[in-house]
Amino acid sequence: MTDRLSEFRAFRERMNARILEAGNLEIKRFFALDTRCYEAGALDVRTKELMGLAASMVLRCDDCITYHVIRCKEEGVSDEELLEAFNVALIVGGSIVIPHLRRAVDMVDRLNAGEAPEDAGHREHAG
Amino acid sequence: MTDRLSEFRAFRERMNARILEAGNLEIKRFFALDTRCYEAGALDVRTKELMGLAASMVLRCDDCITYHVIRCKEEGVSDEELLEAFNVALIVGGSIVIPHLRRAVDMVDRLNAGEAPEDAGHREHAG
Amino acid sequence: MTDRLSEFRAFRERMNARILEAGNLEIKRFFALDTRCYEAGALDVRTKELMGLAASMVLRCDDCITYHVIRCKEEGVSDEELLEAFNVALIVGGSIVIPHLRRAVDMVDRLNAGEAPEDAGHREHAG
Amino acid sequence: MTDRLSEFRAFRERMNARILEAGNLEIKRFFALDTRCYEAGALDVRTKELMGLAASMVLRCDDCITYHVIRCKEEGVSDEELLEAFNVALIVGGSIVIPHLRRAVDMVDRLNAGEAPEDAGHREHAG
Amino acid sequence: MTDRLSEFRAFRERMNARILEAGNLEIKRFFALDTRCYEAGALDVRTKELMGLAASMVLRCDDCITYHVIRCKEEGVSDEELLEAFNVALIVGGSIVIPHLRRAVDMVDRLNAGEAPEDAGHREHAG
Amino acid sequence: MTDRLSEFRAFRERMNARILEAGNLEIKRFFALDTRCYEAGALDVRTKELMGLAASMVLRCDDCITYHVIRCKEEGVSDEELLEAFNVALIVGGSIVIPHLRRAVDMVDRLNAGEAPEDAGHREHAG
Repeated sequence: MTDRLSEFRAFRERMNARILEAGNLEIKRFFALDTRCYEAGALDVRTKELMGLAASMVLRCDDCITYHVIRCKEEGVSDEELLEAFNVALIVGGSIVIPHLRRAVDMVDRLNAGEAPEDAGHREHAG
Repeated sequence: MTDRLSEFRAFRERMNARILEAGNLEIKRFFALDTRCYEAGALDVRTKELMGLAASMVLRCDDCITYHVIRCKEEGVSDEELLEAFNVALIVGGSIVIPHLRRAVDMVDRLNAGEAPEDAGHREHAG
Repeated sequence: MTDRLSEFRAFRERMNARILEAGNLEIKRFFALDTRCYEAGALDVRTKELMGLAASMVLRCDDCITYHVIRCKEEGVSDEELLEAFNVALIVGGSIVIPHLRRAVDMVDRLNAGEAPEDAGHREHAG
Repeated sequence: MTDRLSEFRAFRERMNARILEAGNLEIKRFFALDTRCYEAGALDVRTKELMGLAASMVLRCDDCITYHVIRCKEEGVSDEELLEAFNVALIVGGSIVIPHLRRAVDMVDRLNAGEAPEDAGHREHAG
Repeated sequence: MTDRLSEFRAFRERMNARILEAGNLEIKRFFALDTRCYEAGALDVRTKELMGLAASMVLRCDDCITYHVIRCKEEGVSDEELLEAFNVALIVGGSIVIPHLRRAVDMVDRLNAGEAPEDAGHREHAG
Repeated sequence: MTDRLSEFRAFRERMNARILEAGNLEIKRFFALDTRCYEAGALDVRTKELMGLAASMVLRCDDCITYHVIRCKEEGVSDEELLEAFNVALIVGGSIVIPHLRRAVDMVDRLNAGEAPEDAGHREHAG
């Protein structure tokens, strides 16, 4: 069961590095803005991550959902709170969100079972 | 070839059960509404499943398409009728639908080749 | 109250004619396929129009919803059936569909109040 | 300048009432779930409204954005916090969000200028 | 007929200015990246504007389509070329694009009839 | 590493053939229009493929992105130009595009490493 999270993280980090070294300055700048927008400001990190999670879920992007679920748990969001966040996305986005909800709950279960992605590195957010 | 449909069904049923037992009452209620909306009313089940199929296809959700293709066939929708339904979705949604059309036709072929999902259980619809 | 439907229809027909005369053969061919896909085949017209309505509603296009609501009523779809069709779209597409549901129900009320678009011409479907 | 908010609210409330009285029980139940999902639970109302705002903005629905902006301000979200919420949606959803951002900032300005929607009634949320 | 383009431009410029002065640095930076990405680089401006037009059309954003149509014409894209660009978007995005195609062709007609937006200012692109 | 591109191509060609022989004339005609729209006209093939790439990327369809990346490289689009095209899609579509950007850059790397799809056949475009 460990594979999925590790593979996700390895591919994500390898390709982020690959993209940042590819020499397109605008893409690098967008990645920087993407990282920056979840940092503490007038709104705290936890609220911003929950917003990123809801937005990712209604837009139905599994990789983005996985990323924000991991970050939410790092910020101390409880499983009960995650389920309420999933419910907001389900109501806004409808049943078309359900396949992603299944995979998101599976991801939460994997994280709770100790399939924890190691900490270093993935905080440089990108998508 | 049997794997894909069985895996789809096993994961779907395991996670639906997991979600329903997770203790969020609102999500359970949404799942109930989702099941209810395809039941016979002023419109018959077959028409509603064809509408669910068209909606799933233009929104480009493979799991939802697979589910509604299985249900349409259970309701006696012929392959010729399925192709016309696919065509409506293709015209409304454009060429971006084509990769999903390929997988949908592949799914119809698998079902026709006897890779039939067993009946029990999956009628409790959810997404 | 008559204005909205008449304006919709007048602009739609003027621009469809304008586009078809503009000299791009591929666009003309697509318009022909669009018209053709709602004609009777293995599936009847009524079922196809309900599918077009559901697809338009989850994709949230007011003009397309208006068109298919008019066509559904011409094909004898009752208000109770329309509401069930709207419900399928609402469940699949979520609360983001609600503003379009409001306008669709308003359109049904206008049509029932006699704000009937005249018949000729708009059967050459296009979007 | 007062017109836009008043018209929005009047049409919204008239059609919500019209839909709820139309006799489709499933749609009524969905509206109830929609209202319920923004009520306090494990997550507080303010966080849920910010999530609804972000989801509405990346899905690009002006009516939904207007509704959640009004609700956020009622919950004490400051203009600086709203701008950060808009930024999360802008980064997740891209420049296609900008026309909606323009209208959202215009709505905030109207609300701050005293074009306040009256309180009663619109708390029964629906979309 | 002049109103629509002038209104579009006036609201767009007023709100862009309003947003840039609102004090959120990240949003300002995103606007700068948005302007920058259509400037000449390895790809020329004309090709980039055509790409922005196609992307805006399949995502179905009228304001974005209007902006890129104006810019394409400034870059010397002919009406015949615009129609081919519209056709690519129509094929990729399907009949749901047609209402936007109607408004885009209407916009081209208005521009050709001399309803030309004045040049200054709108080159600072934003969405 | 060779597997992914070969599998993509094999499944794509097998299912395109399967769909074209399935006997639905309208679907065949849509496939023909899809092929035709990327052929040289007022706009050249290279520009049209870049437009198809941008549209596919903001709509977030991996199969469509892969197809247009392959075709762009066949038309002589350089890696630097591809990165600028990716950047246009990233700005228009936002961070939700990033997972697809990762897979697109990975695909470019595979193609550059000699994992070249053979030429014959795939020029009959479909989605």
